[in-house]
Amino acid sequence: MKSAPGFAYMSHIREGLPKPAPASVSPRYNFGTGHNDPNLIPVDGLARATEEALKFCGRDLAKYMMGGSALGIESLRKLVASMLYERRGISVVPDQVLITGGSAQGIDLVNQILVSRGDTVIYEQYTYSGAFSKLARAGARCVGAALDEDGVVPESLDRLLQDLKARNVTPRYLYIIPTVQNPTGTVMSLLRRQELLAVTRAHGLPVLEDDCYADVSWVGPLPPALFALDPTQVIYIGSFSKSLAPALRVGYAVAQPDLVSQLLACKNDGGTGSVDQLAVSQYLDGRLDTHLREVSRTLEAKSVAMIEAFERHFGPHAKIRRPAGGIYVWVELPKHIDTRKLVEPAKAAGITFNPGAEWACDPESAKHFMRLCFAMPSPDEIETGVAELAKIYRSHLSQTADDGRAAASHAVST
Amino acid sequence: MKSAPGFAYMSHIREGLPKPAPASVSPRYNFGTGHNDPNLIPVDGLARATEEALKFCGRDLAKYMMGGSALGIESLRKLVASMLYERRGISVVPDQVLITGGSAQGIDLVNQILVSRGDTVIYEQYTYSGAFSKLARAGARCVGAALDEDGVVPESLDRLLQDLKARNVTPRYLYIIPTVQNPTGTVMSLLRRQELLAVTRAHGLPVLEDDCYADVSWVGPLPPALFALDPTQVIYIGSFSKSLAPALRVGYAVAQPDLVSQLLACKNDGGTGSVDQLAVSQYLDGRLDTHLREVSRTLEAKSVAMIEAFERHFGPHAKIRRPAGGIYVWVELPKHIDTRKLVEPAKAAGITFNPGAEWACDPESAKHFMRLCFAMPSPDEIETGVAELAKIYRSHLSQTADDGRAAASHAVST
Repeated sequence: MKSAPGFAYMSHIREGLPKPAPASVSPRYNFGTGHNDPNLIPVDGLARATEEALKFCGRDLAKYMMGGSALGIESLRKLVASMLYERRGISVVPDQVLITGGSAQGIDLVNQILVSRGDTVIYEQYTYSGAFSKLARAGARCVGAALDEDGVVPESLDRLLQDLKARNVTPRYLYIIPTVQNPTGTVMSLLRRQELLAVTRAHGLPVLEDDCYADVSWVGPLPPALFALDPTQVIYIGSFSKSLAPALRVGYAVAQPDLVSQLLACKNDGGTGSVDQLAVSQYLDGRLDTHLREVSRTLEAKSVAMIEAFERHFGPHAKIRRPAGGIYVWVELPKHIDTRKLVEPAKAAGITFNPGAEWACDPESAKHFMRLCFAMPSPDEIETGVAELAKIYRSHLSQTADDGRAAASHAVST
Repeated sequence: MKSAPGFAYMSHIREGLPKPAPASVSPRYNFGTGHNDPNLIPVDGLARATEEALKFCGRDLAKYMMGGSALGIESLRKLVASMLYERRGISVVPDQVLITGGSAQGIDLVNQILVSRGDTVIYEQYTYSGAFSKLARAGARCVGAALDEDGVVPESLDRLLQDLKARNVTPRYLYIIPTVQNPTGTVMSLLRRQELLAVTRAHGLPVLEDDCYADVSWVGPLPPALFALDPTQVIYIGSFSKSLAPALRVGYAVAQPDLVSQLLACKNDGGTGSVDQLAVSQYLDGRLDTHLREVSRTLEAKSVAMIEAFERHFGPHAKIRRPAGGIYVWVELPKHIDTRKLVEPAKAAGITFNPGAEWACDPESAKHFMRLCFAMPSPDEIETGVAELAKIYRSHLSQTADDGRAAASHAVST
């Protein structure tokens, strides 16, 4: 017996959606995904802490949000508040901390409360690629603010805002990663932070500060967060993805109480996963500083391994600024290179990385850059993977040169 | 020194957002929230299972989605696939199971792929109140399909769809809870399911089947899910919120492979919390049937306690159909009552419940109903809370009668 023909459900899907997701891939040399170092997961401690927490308050799982505040589990919000005070100069009460499913949800919530279709948002010229798709989903566009080695340049931002004003465009907010900028790895100085906030305040521009890499840095005491300098003009987001584990979907948004209430009203997910929250809170309580020191030390060593591998295998072709923290390097190749063209041959060799064009407001401006994550691969994998990538690069170079000669000879012969 | 005046961040919030969230409340008699019975949480077993799972694969937390499929943790997707086969007649492979943050995220994702602003969706005339706010967020409206004691009435749905067609309205999908309907507590028969699918197929109407109460029912073998009867015209969602714990944010969406890929492409949350997933998967593996039997038995006893309390304290004023499962009763009061008017006096007495108007496409049509959740409160709390609610109801009745007399005497005297 033949079954009836199927209902064509896919024909009802609306237009303009993200393309159906491809199957997962596990490349041999994964420099493309912001994974962490598996050896930095405190497996036994985390397992024990989670068990303890569940034994202590597991009964509360019967209630949405464990019967407590919709903001998230209180012990975790207290931990975040105290951590932000000690490490980022931020002074808030736990009720100003909204636990989110990673910092990514924080960006989505801010878009929800600030952005309408057709709006404009200011991004750093190079920034976190995930923020582009989030903005596209919100139906808005971004304009890039110029960066130098100290982050967003206040004078350039001021000019940009004046230009937009002259064109009757009121940007909705500035999305900025001032501490371990993604992808450039720089940390904005205190003076620059003050200048920047003076500009945004003069223009009435709200700020979203993404501080998700601040806990994994190795350049000595960090300047205070923008939020610490003026808590009224900044919404602050952070995450335990880099400092503990990305598969734990635990981040936080911090703001003035009225903004927290508004963000919470838009967070319609029935709460962030409770056992994930309990695991973070119970494990890190009392262990935070030790843990972060170990994570940062290991990541710094890996960043050095990657930079040295680039020096060995790319020589003067690659310029890399030593990152102040984080899990990635931002590599500049000669201006005529388009790293998008290296993606497929690299993939064929089991290597993934982020072409610069995908991390820039103006893709063409960053086409000769690439971002490589170093946290997950072992030092050996970093060495071998970068060596392999260098071969692909050189083969691309000679291919381009051949093309150039062919084009030149074609030009002559016609 | 006085600080500079604050930046007016709230003045940048866009219009039409949900109202800022109020502080959490913990009423004495909470019949309003779909919490579970705290005594049904297998605290020690869950704690041990989670510890075991973390010791076994905690290192993978270093990777987004634990380095596996973006669909969710494989062991959990296998458990879901096998559970759906055994209990709901559904035959799918684990790669057709997308783990979500509760079934609520499943509804959001389906809205994302099917609904544009201004669209119309068919709901059951009485349905899950959370679905209304989700639809409002998507900028769409709902039209209610008539229910009887067997669920959606196919002939009425057919007429409704013809009417809409005549008005050039193409509804985007039917949202339906055929098994332990929320709030009526009915289970649709097999025959009715077949008739219903014939109607939706004839009209080319996609179906979203919300089966999140199917695991907590006590009426003997359930008819197969709609998805089991025609997997091509149904997206199926379910949850562990009712069967295990709502603070574990673990649900699932099940569909044909191309639809799963499209839903996944729209799920931009970096994955569902891994430890929550691990806890569910490791604990329920091998214990599912025993656990669900115990949960269902306990909930049935509580449903009886609530119905008996209503019989004792409301007498003939309240009509309640015995629910086939779930965690709520749907109480019908005399037609002239508006249960919204009982909300504030009840709250003052420490009692919360859901006024019927909030669980209906046409609020006025359900104003004399109310929904009360019985899973969390103890039998004593159910008895006392319903007795208190009856006092409030009678006081409201006499108040209304006084008003009636006053109005009548006013009418006479003028």
